[in-house]
Amino acid sequence: MPKISNRGEIMPASPIRKLVPLANKAKQKGIKVYHLNIGQPDLPTPEIGLDAARHLDRKILEYSPSEGILSFREKLVEYYAKFNIQVNADDIIITTGGSEAVLFSFLACLDPGDEIIVPEPAYANYMAFAISAGATIKTLPSSINEGFALPAIDKFEALITERTRGILICNPNNPTGYLYTQKEMNQIRDLVKKYDLFLFSDEVYREFCYTGAPYISAFHLKGIEDHVVLIDSVSKRYSECGIRIGALITKHKELKKNVMKFCQARLSPPLIGQLIAEASLGAPSDYLLDTYNEYVERRKFLIDGINRIPGCYSPIPMGAFYTMAKLPVDDADKFCAWCLEHFEYEGQTVFMAPGSGFYTTPGLGKNEVRLAYVLKKEDLANALIVLSKALESYPGRTI
Amino acid sequence: MPKISNRGEIMPASPIRKLVPLANKAKQKGIKVYHLNIGQPDLPTPEIGLDAARHLDRKILEYSPSEGILSFREKLVEYYAKFNIQVNADDIIITTGGSEAVLFSFLACLDPGDEIIVPEPAYANYMAFAISAGATIKTLPSSINEGFALPAIDKFEALITERTRGILICNPNNPTGYLYTQKEMNQIRDLVKKYDLFLFSDEVYREFCYTGAPYISAFHLKGIEDHVVLIDSVSKRYSECGIRIGALITKHKELKKNVMKFCQARLSPPLIGQLIAEASLGAPSDYLLDTYNEYVERRKFLIDGINRIPGCYSPIPMGAFYTMAKLPVDDADKFCAWCLEHFEYEGQTVFMAPGSGFYTTPGLGKNEVRLAYVLKKEDLANALIVLSKALESYPGRTI
Repeated sequence: MPKISNRGEIMPASPIRKLVPLANKAKQKGIKVYHLNIGQPDLPTPEIGLDAARHLDRKILEYSPSEGILSFREKLVEYYAKFNIQVNADDIIITTGGSEAVLFSFLACLDPGDEIIVPEPAYANYMAFAISAGATIKTLPSSINEGFALPAIDKFEALITERTRGILICNPNNPTGYLYTQKEMNQIRDLVKKYDLFLFSDEVYREFCYTGAPYISAFHLKGIEDHVVLIDSVSKRYSECGIRIGALITKHKELKKNVMKFCQARLSPPLIGQLIAEASLGAPSDYLLDTYNEYVERRKFLIDGINRIPGCYSPIPMGAFYTMAKLPVDDADKFCAWCLEHFEYEGQTVFMAPGSGFYTTPGLGKNEVRLAYVLKKEDLANALIVLSKALESYPGRTI
Repeated sequence: MPKISNRGEIMPASPIRKLVPLANKAKQKGIKVYHLNIGQPDLPTPEIGLDAARHLDRKILEYSPSEGILSFREKLVEYYAKFNIQVNADDIIITTGGSEAVLFSFLACLDPGDEIIVPEPAYANYMAFAISAGATIKTLPSSINEGFALPAIDKFEALITERTRGILICNPNNPTGYLYTQKEMNQIRDLVKKYDLFLFSDEVYREFCYTGAPYISAFHLKGIEDHVVLIDSVSKRYSECGIRIGALITKHKELKKNVMKFCQARLSPPLIGQLIAEASLGAPSDYLLDTYNEYVERRKFLIDGINRIPGCYSPIPMGAFYTMAKLPVDDADKFCAWCLEHFEYEGQTVFMAPGSGFYTTPGLGKNEVRLAYVLKKEDLANALIVLSKALESYPGRTI
């Protein structure tokens, strides 16, 4: 039997999805599983988006252009302008989810052995896409005790080698909910300029900033417009994760040309998803406002609840719909698996994403989990009860 | 401005899509362009597939499982059984088009520097995906004069090095329409076994075999079941290229586990596309029969027509819906561009894919083009007239 690639061997399993088989087994036993592990909102997709599928008037479901449908890209230009992001339709390439935007950014910007610097904890799949591209992610730990603020900029500088090609940030941040300040963004800008780096900026949660602090896009930073590779997705803002529609936005002409080669190789992004996403941009303003208000409530509810459980701590996330919480356990990987395999409370359990998968520095995140507040308040209330009961029974409890 | 990757620089532009800007300019001038360049059928998608979108009864367009929807995979098991391909739902991973199946096969089986052997001319994007994965494709020329039969098996053997990890075939073949014989498939099987190689087998055109010769799947070959990585797609058989639904099928347990890591990193394949593809499997038997009969007619019509134009030659393709044709021109790349940029006949022109892009051996395919017979007969008739007029006027004509 032929051997698989080493690349396949070193690929980390997704911390968000690797426990799915255990969750499925729990469900088969009739246990209700609260999914705090995955950023899959339970909020409805805009009706106007669903209607785009329902009113499909095509006879042939043809390839769309490799760069995405023009009218969709033109509407996105208007959407970004509302956030003071000035781009034109030619700067926007539609991708199969934000995931493909990350992969194509890495393939088009990085050669095997090239390095990028990413503050951790970080969205775990960045590591997976870097491995796919043969590139190396160097991580810089941020700390729960400092609310996951940007690590001191001289620590970034200390990691820069001749192979460093870029910095990647996610803002508002998944998994921490941190929102980078103007001062932090200016520090990043200066570094990017000084070392002629790419700035990969994943901004898919821009709609969800809760503290009144401004959302600062990488495209707001003056003088590095050609360095920015913006990653976007409609998945979260319209609760349409399943349609797999994202975007890669760059003003770097040569980069755009090269990303297009990868786009042409995979022919086109999903057609029906684009029709739905384009229509969703026309959702009434109520839709996003209601969604926003709902997350504001859930955030307060979850964070208050977590911080009331003895030994647990979560900083208050400023954006997105995740938080990293510290739990009084020996090993969150074991604890998360245990909750699914060996625990239930009144026929219920919780599915959380172990923190370690969001760090590459060994040992970090060992007593942390990522929690997504994408469930309605009753479900969050039950999940909090289940979690506190689980912590009472867990044999590896540390306090 | 930061520099792009070398990988991006060496990525070939798609021979199928690179002339699109010229075609768009011709269209802007009011010229009717006949698309012989791309395998985009003009036949309707099955109504039952379209209805799956129109009757969408979901409120939330959620992520689907990373390996694809179970009921869809179960229906595919029945579909494959009709072709005597015995697989179970666990062997099938749904991908974002056949494209992603190729990419994930390469990422999970090949490390940078590893080699696979592919008969050429070959589907150009294999090269692109190999470059994405840092792997090397070694090509073995087949010849138009021998109808693009499999090159002698000892030539394959001569290319094998310690870095060779697999052989890739496309059967029925894109771009040649060749259908591999039992004898050729047995030779491949023996080689795969002898050197413990993967056999990547792209079989997306299995519905379209025209000569009564049997379609031999890689999974029909005894004793190498664990070596086979079957690539599939619903795009062509249901005229739904735009939904981006394909499959990677393997019985190699460890490989499956590793492919799943790449699948989890990109979260899930397109949801609505899966609903459409699953429903399309239930299309009435008339649908595929009508489609088949239509291609039989078009094939005869196009090949007869090409072979009547002085200096042109196409062997008779046995399957798929492409042919490689030899034209009396100095350079088919120049000729194809010239047809779009500088030629029109009664307000019409033709868009063909230059043959060179389907070869990696320099100089090969220079006077060949790939033609897709995916247009209705009247359009093919007009395209043939336009092509013959274009050849009369083209300054680089060789006879």
